Amino acid sequence: MARTVGELGEFGVIARIERIASRSGRAVELGIGDDAAVLKPPPGERLLVSTDAHVEGVHFRWKTTAAVTVGRRALVANLSDLAAMGGRPLGFVLALAAPPGLSLRSLDGVVRGLAAEAERHGCPLVGGNVSRARETSLTITVLGSARPGRILTRRGARQGDRILLTGSLGGPALEVARAARRGGWIRQVPEPRLAAGRLLARTPRVGACIDVSDGLEADLGHLLDAAQGGPLGAELDPEALPTPRGFGPACRRLGLDPLKLAMTGGEDWELLFTVRPAGPRAARLSARLGLPVTEIGRVTARPARRRRGAGGWTHF
Amino acid sequence: MARTVGELGEFGVIARIERIASRSGRAVELGIGDDAAVLKPPPGERLLVSTDAHVEGVHFRWKTTAAVTVGRRALVANLSDLAAMGGRPLGFVLALAAPPGLSLRSLDGVVRGLAAEAERHGCPLVGGNVSRARETSLTITVLGSARPGRILTRRGARQGDRILLTGSLGGPALEVARAARRGGWIRQVPEPRLAAGRLLARTPRVGACIDVSDGLEADLGHLLDAAQGGPLGAELDPEALPTPRGFGPACRRLGLDPLKLAMTGGEDWELLFTVRPAGPRAARLSARLGLPVTEIGRVTARPARRRRGAGGWTHF
Repeated sequence: MARTVGELGEFGVIARIERIASRSGRAVELGIGDDAAVLKPPPGERLLVSTDAHVEGVHFRWKTTAAVTVGRRALVANLSDLAAMGGRPLGFVLALAAPPGLSLRSLDGVVRGLAAEAERHGCPLVGGNVSRARETSLTITVLGSARPGRILTRRGARQGDRILLTGSLGGPALEVARAARRGGWIRQVPEPRLAAGRLLARTPRVGACIDVSDGLEADLGHLLDAAQGGPLGAELDPEALPTPRGFGPACRRLGLDPLKLAMTGGEDWELLFTVRPAGPRAARLSARLGLPVTEIGRVTARPARRRRGAGGWTHF
Repeated sequence: MARTVGELGEFGVIARIERIASRSGRAVELGIGDDAAVLKPPPGERLLVSTDAHVEGVHFRWKTTAAVTVGRRALVANLSDLAAMGGRPLGFVLALAAPPGLSLRSLDGVVRGLAAEAERHGCPLVGGNVSRARETSLTITVLGSARPGRILTRRGARQGDRILLTGSLGGPALEVARAARRGGWIRQVPEPRLAAGRLLARTPRVGACIDVSDGLEADLGHLLDAAQGGPLGAELDPEALPTPRGFGPACRRLGLDPLKLAMTGGEDWELLFTVRPAGPRAARLSARLGLPVTEIGRVTARPARRRRGAGGWTHF
């Protein structure tokens, strides 16, 4: 009996993935097994499309992450991009590249992880591709939809907007650092903020939105650079940054700077967004979204140079 | 000045790709630069989606293929999948994985090749992802659309259908074999049969359709296995297989079996389709499609075992 991807061969692997992961979906007219999948998007809605790669040795390590978690996190990362646009998932395609020696146990775990998140968020696997490569990678393209005028983008920030954030920062990066230094497994699978994104897209006076994948500092930079009238600046209150309970002491035990980890760790998959001065406050948004929402700063004119300020505020 | 992808960094590479390849398109409301692209598919049409990977050392070699040709062939392979469904391109996303040492000259070439085919076929680059990896790969997801009821699938073959093929077989495989044995460059960029696929989707009595990517033998097998009532068989007339002028002698000079190369070479990107007995003949289809169309066999009940028959016919 085959024990590796190489022994099973391309079409055997495809059949195996199909058996584990294939599900029907409300929008799927033709799924895995043809030259292209056929979807029926909700009439009148816009189509959203986003692609993301998860490469062994870059985005995950088999030593620290169970295969099922690799699969779950890969799909969550893509769903988070839809969330940041205010979209609803339609389905996804998977391009799997793997060395012939990859065990079928690992393959099955990854596919079960993908299938679990797919089921949870109504985003079925509708097609894909299997290829040989020197390292394992999962390249996922997710499709979603949203009503015109109900789409969040990175472009909508304006000077004076308040900057808000769902959930907390730094937890995933702390777990990665702990696994790298002390061993053990990465178990966290952050929740893609799909419902929150859709609610924000319907909330008046929300400006721009992005998901925190590269870290708050980098992603806030992307959002400020993308502003429609040209790049903007920001002031952040580091004291306000929401982190998980016990985060500071846990960081210090590992010799890590909590603020730095919260600002740059990444893979938080929280929504970072701006709201006009007259828009709803954090407490009201939190009640509406059913999530912690924290105001962490405000949008300013573009400063000459981004730097950490004297008063404790971080200037961008 | 940066000379490699690693020196330029992720966001520098993204900006460079955007500069070379970004184009507006009739369906693109928001392209590169946000968490997801926003497309407006033609009202009432179905969405088609297909993904395909091109991996260095598996699907191409820098030694035998110019970077611009690598890019062109990668997009053509995806467009061919849309063609086989009768679809019209909307746009594509690119997940580029590359080692830090990849030269910017190679990157630019690949992206120019993608941009050239994108322009030619009205299929703009709308988003993507850049990641580090040990080998270069291009994973492309192409989106297209088609009117409901005007979509070709692999499922529609029936016993008694005639089997037809656009263009010719074996030319691309011969060029690859020649480059591998005698050196020189792979220059052919087959034409994705987009217009032909759309015309076939409107032609009464066309059964199933697939594009020839893995080779005639394998892809005919896929089409027969996918038949709606269960797997079917086929008889092919090897004498009828269309090959380019001078193909036989050129194969023999390289010590290759012309029939085997035409049957199994692959990457022909021609359309292989079935037509009911009472449907149009090859000559009429050829006139309609503006392409050579050849009848090469017929669909039979499923044989006990696929084999090459005694009378010269190949049985599937």
